[in-house]
Amino acid sequence: MKRSVFKTKKYRTDMNAKILNSGYQEFNKYFALDARAYVKGSLEVKTKEMLGLVASMVLRCNDCIFYHLDRCVSEKCSREELYEAMHIALIVGGTIVIPHLRYAFEVLDELFETPRTGAGRVAEHVH
Amino acid sequence: MKRSVFKTKKYRTDMNAKILNSGYQEFNKYFALDARAYVKGSLEVKTKEMLGLVASMVLRCNDCIFYHLDRCVSEKCSREELYEAMHIALIVGGTIVIPHLRYAFEVLDELFETPRTGAGRVAEHVH
Amino acid sequence: MKRSVFKTKKYRTDMNAKILNSGYQEFNKYFALDARAYVKGSLEVKTKEMLGLVASMVLRCNDCIFYHLDRCVSEKCSREELYEAMHIALIVGGTIVIPHLRYAFEVLDELFETPRTGAGRVAEHVH
Amino acid sequence: MKRSVFKTKKYRTDMNAKILNSGYQEFNKYFALDARAYVKGSLEVKTKEMLGLVASMVLRCNDCIFYHLDRCVSEKCSREELYEAMHIALIVGGTIVIPHLRYAFEVLDELFETPRTGAGRVAEHVH
Amino acid sequence: MKRSVFKTKKYRTDMNAKILNSGYQEFNKYFALDARAYVKGSLEVKTKEMLGLVASMVLRCNDCIFYHLDRCVSEKCSREELYEAMHIALIVGGTIVIPHLRYAFEVLDELFETPRTGAGRVAEHVH
Amino acid sequence: MKRSVFKTKKYRTDMNAKILNSGYQEFNKYFALDARAYVKGSLEVKTKEMLGLVASMVLRCNDCIFYHLDRCVSEKCSREELYEAMHIALIVGGTIVIPHLRYAFEVLDELFETPRTGAGRVAEHVH
Repeated sequence: MKRSVFKTKKYRTDMNAKILNSGYQEFNKYFALDARAYVKGSLEVKTKEMLGLVASMVLRCNDCIFYHLDRCVSEKCSREELYEAMHIALIVGGTIVIPHLRYAFEVLDELFETPRTGAGRVAEHVH
Repeated sequence: MKRSVFKTKKYRTDMNAKILNSGYQEFNKYFALDARAYVKGSLEVKTKEMLGLVASMVLRCNDCIFYHLDRCVSEKCSREELYEAMHIALIVGGTIVIPHLRYAFEVLDELFETPRTGAGRVAEHVH
Repeated sequence: MKRSVFKTKKYRTDMNAKILNSGYQEFNKYFALDARAYVKGSLEVKTKEMLGLVASMVLRCNDCIFYHLDRCVSEKCSREELYEAMHIALIVGGTIVIPHLRYAFEVLDELFETPRTGAGRVAEHVH
Repeated sequence: MKRSVFKTKKYRTDMNAKILNSGYQEFNKYFALDARAYVKGSLEVKTKEMLGLVASMVLRCNDCIFYHLDRCVSEKCSREELYEAMHIALIVGGTIVIPHLRYAFEVLDELFETPRTGAGRVAEHVH
Repeated sequence: MKRSVFKTKKYRTDMNAKILNSGYQEFNKYFALDARAYVKGSLEVKTKEMLGLVASMVLRCNDCIFYHLDRCVSEKCSREELYEAMHIALIVGGTIVIPHLRYAFEVLDELFETPRTGAGRVAEHVH
Repeated sequence: MKRSVFKTKKYRTDMNAKILNSGYQEFNKYFALDARAYVKGSLEVKTKEMLGLVASMVLRCNDCIFYHLDRCVSEKCSREELYEAMHIALIVGGTIVIPHLRYAFEVLDELFETPRTGAGRVAEHVH
């Protein structure tokens, strides 16, 4: 069940390329709109990524949890901050969220050990 | 469809009283656990309430949206911050969230006009 | 927000009649299949109705909660049994279920006071 | 529980105006992206609106069901076609969809009686 | 993560056999009702399969997406038609649907390359 | 896709240990509250586990289905009782639940063959 950070990211990148090269331009516009939602505004990027993380947890999507956890770590969220954010997801979403909390704990160590090269580039900001 | 802030709060308070006075103590413990999730920790209360708001929007529950919007206003979220948080809910959750965005806009003016007496008391912190 | 037992049942009956008289027979077969799921088998009707209640609560549908609560009361579930069943729904489904627990408490007194004429007839067994 | 076609549309229009005049332009871009999804392409508008209807039913959103039913009627869907589409939503989504089928039958007569002035204008194409 | 068309179909067939041979006849009736929903009526089979595809995407079930994509290809949907249908699922369901769009793009080439022997037989029409 | 009972349980145990040893005590309190919900009260443990099973099926979580199926077998549910309970989940939740019914049938034989040492200990009662 263990999926390395590298493989998970590669699969996402490869499939996103397929989608964005399909020739159906509405997909590209949609992905662009998505990316803009997490850019700094009145709220910090870090806060926005935690909002994305909690939304992904209550909707129970491991791929989305992986993505936002990774972005949260890039944005310097501490473990304690992530625990509190994930706890809110757990409280709102119920025990049905627990398998996704297990998944988050499965990948979290590896995410914290992955070297970060400054804030994520826009190219990476695709769900 | 318009429900005043006062009536919405009164209904919630009355029904919560029924639940908490039912004699089944697990409900009381559950509500207490819920309240503690939004207390200041590594994250500010304001951030936690926005996390609760976004979770409520993607899960599409107007009562929960009302509650967290009200708490966000008490915690001094600006309109712009709320728009950005709700936009993330919209992006993650899709157009199916739009009716709940309409509901948020329906009550938001009234919530901003409601006088606030400092930070919300714990007694209020019940979903 | 209060909807009397009588009015809620009448609306359901009237709209079900529209559906079942639409001439599209697949709807009728679907409703019949649904009704059979709650008939006594290896499990008691009472247990089956509690299963339906919990499913309705975690999926957060007030009309379905009303229907199964009403059936549970007809099948002689005690208040304590209903509290325990609803608590499991709350635990599995999270605080997002709380507004539906409030709805259940809103109608429960009236449901317990409604006279029951033996076990529900099949004609009533339509969601 | 009956909400006339007129009142439902007016509420939607008024609240959409609030959202689109909020000054937060991402909402406007999002609504525009939404509108474009239902424009004629390889698929007919009529087919696209039925896709929107089924998506709305399985996600159990009455406001969205109302909107897409209204659009489907404008696009000349017959009753029989709508029954078959809604039946697929029922089959995929389960009996938890039944209350929303009741809602659809509640408003359908009124929608078919509402005069239509040709295909819906883009200005109307907002969820 | 790659699952070949062959293996995915074999797993479904094997497990469906277990269910349909369990001796509990209500399962068999349920599967039969499901199969009938996609038979030609006022709507073409092709349209019905696209309705099933969009319902499966917004409810975020890869197995169901695979099944309906496969059926859509059998029914001669073009790539462009499938992109437009999936785009509506994306718009209604939000970015949480993106991982399932990636899954669809992962299997789509293989599905288009799989030889088709006319319209799908009823025996195949099991979810 | 086959995951043995042993491996599935080991993964759950290992990840739960990570969560419960994270130092964030709210997780521990949450897991304790969860465990208490399934203890004998007015309802039998067996009934409560079936309620948990049906909730897990309609919310479509394989890990939770596995857990509650395993507990149901420990509590002496017969195959026929489980079929009836799962049928209710299918009816309420729709064909989107079928892939999870397939999963249940995939693991059920192995679960019935796993030796049981009396009623499950509390230590096991973690989702």
